Amino acid sequence: MGHTFPGACAPFGIVQLSPETDTIPHNVDGKYQTKVYEYCAGYQYHDPTIVGFSHTHLSGTGHSDLGDILIMPTSGRIRTNPGTADRPDEGYRSRFSHSTEKSTAGYYEVVLDDYGIKAELTATQRVGVHRYTFPSEEGQFILDLGSGIYNYEGKTLWTNLRVVNDTLLTGYRITNGWARQNYTYFAIALSEPLRQYGYVDHQRMKYNGFWRKMDIHHNFPDMAGREIVGYFRTGLSSEKQLTVRVALSAVSMGGALANLYAETSGRSFDDIRNATALCWEHELKNVEIEGTDDQKALFYTSLYHTMINPSVYMDVDGSYRGNDMEIHKADGFTNYTVFSLWDTYRAEHPLLNLLKPRQGRDMATSMVQIQQQSALHLLPMWFLMANEGWCMSGYHAVPVLADAATKAGFPRSAKVLEAMDATATSPWIEGMNDYLQYGYVPYDRCGTSASNTLEYAYDDWAIYYTALQAGNQEMAERYRKRALNYRNVFNPELGLACPKYKDGSWKKDFSPLQTYGEGFIEGNSANYSFHVPHDVLGMIACFGGEKKFLSRLDELFSMDLDKKYYEDNEDIEEECLLGGYVHGNEPSHHVPYLYAWTSQPWKSQYWLREIMNRMYVNNIDGLHGNDDCGQMSAWYIFTAMGFYPVCPGTDQYVLGAPYVPYVRLTLDNGRTLEIRADGVSDVKRYVKNVLLNGKTLTRRYITHQEILDGGVLEFQMSDKPNKRSAQKALPYSLSD
Amino acid sequence: MGHTFPGACAPFGIVQLSPETDTIPHNVDGKYQTKVYEYCAGYQYHDPTIVGFSHTHLSGTGHSDLGDILIMPTSGRIRTNPGTADRPDEGYRSRFSHSTEKSTAGYYEVVLDDYGIKAELTATQRVGVHRYTFPSEEGQFILDLGSGIYNYEGKTLWTNLRVVNDTLLTGYRITNGWARQNYTYFAIALSEPLRQYGYVDHQRMKYNGFWRKMDIHHNFPDMAGREIVGYFRTGLSSEKQLTVRVALSAVSMGGALANLYAETSGRSFDDIRNATALCWEHELKNVEIEGTDDQKALFYTSLYHTMINPSVYMDVDGSYRGNDMEIHKADGFTNYTVFSLWDTYRAEHPLLNLLKPRQGRDMATSMVQIQQQSALHLLPMWFLMANEGWCMSGYHAVPVLADAATKAGFPRSAKVLEAMDATATSPWIEGMNDYLQYGYVPYDRCGTSASNTLEYAYDDWAIYYTALQAGNQEMAERYRKRALNYRNVFNPELGLACPKYKDGSWKKDFSPLQTYGEGFIEGNSANYSFHVPHDVLGMIACFGGEKKFLSRLDELFSMDLDKKYYEDNEDIEEECLLGGYVHGNEPSHHVPYLYAWTSQPWKSQYWLREIMNRMYVNNIDGLHGNDDCGQMSAWYIFTAMGFYPVCPGTDQYVLGAPYVPYVRLTLDNGRTLEIRADGVSDVKRYVKNVLLNGKTLTRRYITHQEILDGGVLEFQMSDKPNKRSAQKALPYSLSD
Repeated sequence: MGHTFPGACAPFGIVQLSPETDTIPHNVDGKYQTKVYEYCAGYQYHDPTIVGFSHTHLSGTGHSDLGDILIMPTSGRIRTNPGTADRPDEGYRSRFSHSTEKSTAGYYEVVLDDYGIKAELTATQRVGVHRYTFPSEEGQFILDLGSGIYNYEGKTLWTNLRVVNDTLLTGYRITNGWARQNYTYFAIALSEPLRQYGYVDHQRMKYNGFWRKMDIHHNFPDMAGREIVGYFRTGLSSEKQLTVRVALSAVSMGGALANLYAETSGRSFDDIRNATALCWEHELKNVEIEGTDDQKALFYTSLYHTMINPSVYMDVDGSYRGNDMEIHKADGFTNYTVFSLWDTYRAEHPLLNLLKPRQGRDMATSMVQIQQQSALHLLPMWFLMANEGWCMSGYHAVPVLADAATKAGFPRSAKVLEAMDATATSPWIEGMNDYLQYGYVPYDRCGTSASNTLEYAYDDWAIYYTALQAGNQEMAERYRKRALNYRNVFNPELGLACPKYKDGSWKKDFSPLQTYGEGFIEGNSANYSFHVPHDVLGMIACFGGEKKFLSRLDELFSMDLDKKYYEDNEDIEEECLLGGYVHGNEPSHHVPYLYAWTSQPWKSQYWLREIMNRMYVNNIDGLHGNDDCGQMSAWYIFTAMGFYPVCPGTDQYVLGAPYVPYVRLTLDNGRTLEIRADGVSDVKRYVKNVLLNGKTLTRRYITHQEILDGGVLEFQMSDKPNKRSAQKALPYSLSD
Repeated sequence: MGHTFPGACAPFGIVQLSPETDTIPHNVDGKYQTKVYEYCAGYQYHDPTIVGFSHTHLSGTGHSDLGDILIMPTSGRIRTNPGTADRPDEGYRSRFSHSTEKSTAGYYEVVLDDYGIKAELTATQRVGVHRYTFPSEEGQFILDLGSGIYNYEGKTLWTNLRVVNDTLLTGYRITNGWARQNYTYFAIALSEPLRQYGYVDHQRMKYNGFWRKMDIHHNFPDMAGREIVGYFRTGLSSEKQLTVRVALSAVSMGGALANLYAETSGRSFDDIRNATALCWEHELKNVEIEGTDDQKALFYTSLYHTMINPSVYMDVDGSYRGNDMEIHKADGFTNYTVFSLWDTYRAEHPLLNLLKPRQGRDMATSMVQIQQQSALHLLPMWFLMANEGWCMSGYHAVPVLADAATKAGFPRSAKVLEAMDATATSPWIEGMNDYLQYGYVPYDRCGTSASNTLEYAYDDWAIYYTALQAGNQEMAERYRKRALNYRNVFNPELGLACPKYKDGSWKKDFSPLQTYGEGFIEGNSANYSFHVPHDVLGMIACFGGEKKFLSRLDELFSMDLDKKYYEDNEDIEEECLLGGYVHGNEPSHHVPYLYAWTSQPWKSQYWLREIMNRMYVNNIDGLHGNDDCGQMSAWYIFTAMGFYPVCPGTDQYVLGAPYVPYVRLTLDNGRTLEIRADGVSDVKRYVKNVLLNGKTLTRRYITHQEILDGGVLEFQMSDKPNKRSAQKALPYSLSD
């Protein structure tokens, strides 16, 4: 259920070269709806065939798109349709066996059984590199420009393919999918010269006028059409290998060519593979841990997954396609895309702001550029390639900017504050006009009114906090008031957040355990009511005081949730549950840390380890829930280290308990922080005492600056909760 | 039949803002085939309704496309489909009356009767400007991004429309028509602010996922879809006028915006109208004539028509979309498009090389750029916007380059020779491989083998002549031989060109009068056999000597052609015929001048005046044949002046007889040439004597340099042929 892909990519690369184990066949209607969720990453382990290798993938999402520029090496008769999983021989796809698969950071290999071809993949940030070893001295591959993930008739608007010379192809495709207008230009370099090529057009151009005069389907170097599938035949040397380098650009074919040259010119497949492995080594060695092999595998796999999306979205010369579909030049920053912000504002961006402040800063800058280019003047919500995808709720770019300002040197400029303000007052934010009028989103106007209100209030806090730091008192005060709006959806009789009508009355027959149809999105009231990360003390009061709050928290983790509450939800399976706590859906991610504001902080320590043990497994199941562009993984990293950014935007990390006995963080400033938890285990999961550089920490949090300063953070572990811990001082809360 | 449009444009402008009197309604299949020819220019005089005003039109073609960015002012209920001619009230179109139409160079007006709206149009090179006077103080218009000429379901690939602020819209559309990939970006400035707007999508996006959450169809500034039609409502001041300025670009919305500012910023409708009128005045006053009002109307209308296509195809900053679909920057030249070269190499380009050498040179440069960008390495054939349209035959960019080199200072560089050679040896030129092998295109390989061979031989001569002048002896000799290939399709028994098989045998049951199916294109053997402009003496020999040649020529003009030979041809009507001579189809254009190589040159003088009188009329019929991007008109201008470039590429103009008594040519070098033909009339149509600057001319041609030197060219007219003219020296012929 993680929806990650096994293919090759470089850190933060826009190319994710990975096998598709199923795609929707061309021109087959009606089927795709059911596969939108399943094939988000193009790959499902139980599938028997590989359709081909495409160059763009979303990592861990719950909605799908991309899968651009699919290449499949074949032998024998040319087939230009993919065939189906149950009748693979009718198309170009091939059976494969997991026993031939190898997948490491930046490298993937598999044997395509139907053809006896060994396929190896590696990648740089902008170039996917294929090495195919054929059984004979004839090389052959399909380039399907109509193939894609979440494909359907009419998604591909236009395809273009040019044979520049016998080892170089260029072209592009334009699609209308989740990314409403997606331009993928490419340049493809072959290690062996072409002998023969051609194409079919599965959608046939409506106008074919004077083109009829020629045979344009064979060896015609100027191909174009609505959905063309090309085939290419080369001779091979005695090594029987063909290397295919595929560079992408969202700008132009010339841009793709420049990317191709800059990143792969003069380098062999092995050179590139080794260089990308070194890149990953470099990025991953920021955090060194001790632990069991399983723990290491999970930790580094998680860390790897936090550095795929967001992805670099610009050519080597800085040109990129903006939200306005125009070509811009990134001035002094690297432009990024794929922002799954409802998910990633929680831990993914905070982790990058901690470990990769340059990238964190540039991602924040990219978001402000998007806002400047937006016809609606909105910061991104769920942004992919050059497009707003409108998925999920809130304006959670705001806390990401706030967090980058607090931790990664992102400036709190007037432009940034204006971008936040424009977004947080926009009529295009669901229910915003009502929210401004009523102080909450009324349920008679919006089906997810309660969760929207909770999310908006936190985002408003992030503007308040940023404006305050920037010295803009007027704006700070305006948003401080808004940040308290969460109170307007707390039903005092229930002590829970609940949908409220315009007239101030509460929804009748309200079920706090039902996820859908009760005013919340991807989470029920029992989980979502805890979503006040910026004012936990105020929230506790809304629950009716600490006792009631604790009883709700305890109940959440230990209840026996009836099947009826989740069996119809595609994104909740039984193994995603811990009582009524749903780790696979993000709204709960900070909830186990909320004990830190109560008299029973050790309960965090207990439940965090339960979640780590049950929700992350070192086998093919991997994650119990979509990775959501690194959010699930970033949660793992923080929690393994023993702290978590409950309220991104503040400089505080709330303490839990380390999952592994030793972590060494190498920071961007060159300093190191060692985190020790000697003897930590499922039994010794409780924290007796915390020492920072030898001194007992009397707080339940550490600050960003303390991490940056480095040293040793020592957790003394115990098999019993320490109910008299020295850690008394509570983390930030607006009502404090 | 002229297929010209009545709307507004600036000289060589890419914007031709003109009414569409019919378009194919959205989603109505099957109808369009019959209208491809009729609606080449979007306008037919007999139509009762105007659909709207679109910004791009081909001038005088026989195949259709464009009609981009259609705007229609309306009142009352918003209708987003155009309706039909017989049920106009069902759509946004309006009835109109010709009595309200005014059309002058750069200006058009009409009253839209259904709405009581007066529409006025003017244009700069890149901006169309509309001024609508509404009956009330409510302004309203439709922007139909799916409308187009030669429209059909699926032609429009994608449309985008953004409300930047309340007086500025930007967007684009991508179409797949005759221009295979056509990108039209726009920026639209309104004189009054928007009050309300919205759109429908006639093709509905296949993916509408999260867009469902919002009402994106009303006042939503970020519109896009496969075929969207927008509507816009503004308030009006007491003048009840709305001015809409629409700038185009093939590069980007930013490019369109820059064009908008550069060409219209701070200028009123009247300012722009007056400035464009002055531009036309400036361009047209190169040639001043005396004559009857009808003659003046026809002459200046013709001259006007020679300066619409080719059209400037670049933004004000020099950026343009190349044949490779990439964005290029024109370095030191103006980039042009719309090259109908099979037509225009004959007289249109030679006329521009004479009157507008800078434009002639830049057009030649543009063609070489196209060749450099072409995946096939071909010079343009029929080029529109950034696309090769593959219409008609030959590689007639070559004689245009040759002519520009001889007359307009275009360099005969190695790059130019290479471009010519690459084109003339390309396997993508129809039958070229066979032509190279056999010396002719065999009829068993190509249905238009005979005309192809004749055309290739002339184009080969143009390469020969250019290489010779450039000092490339090897190339010159190679192409001199090829230039004689026309002989290989002359059937000595017939004394006419005739399709020949690979085995050397001639087509049996050959009809020299049948236009189609006999080895020729747009012309029968009786016309086409004369297509050896570069070697007229050699051709005369092929006809069997002067006597037989003259008898064929005489017969051509005086025969009574049976209806069966033309009644099925959409491009030949009875009034296009002069005997068997078809002026409406270009292959004959030089034929009346061929008498200059015989002992009876006065017959040219006779027939030229017949053609002028019959084929060009000062009423709504205008031209008896498509203007073909100025070729029919350029023929008129040359013939009216008394000379014609029978063999473009040479520096010679073959003398006919002036049609008007006085012409004053103002040349680019500042000099003037006066052409006098005192007393010329239908009776006094014969030339007794020709004096150049007072000296009797003993040649049947004058040279380009003589024209450039200026002075007086005097034709002494007579009512009788001068069979003992002093003009003995014959024009150029390769065999001479």
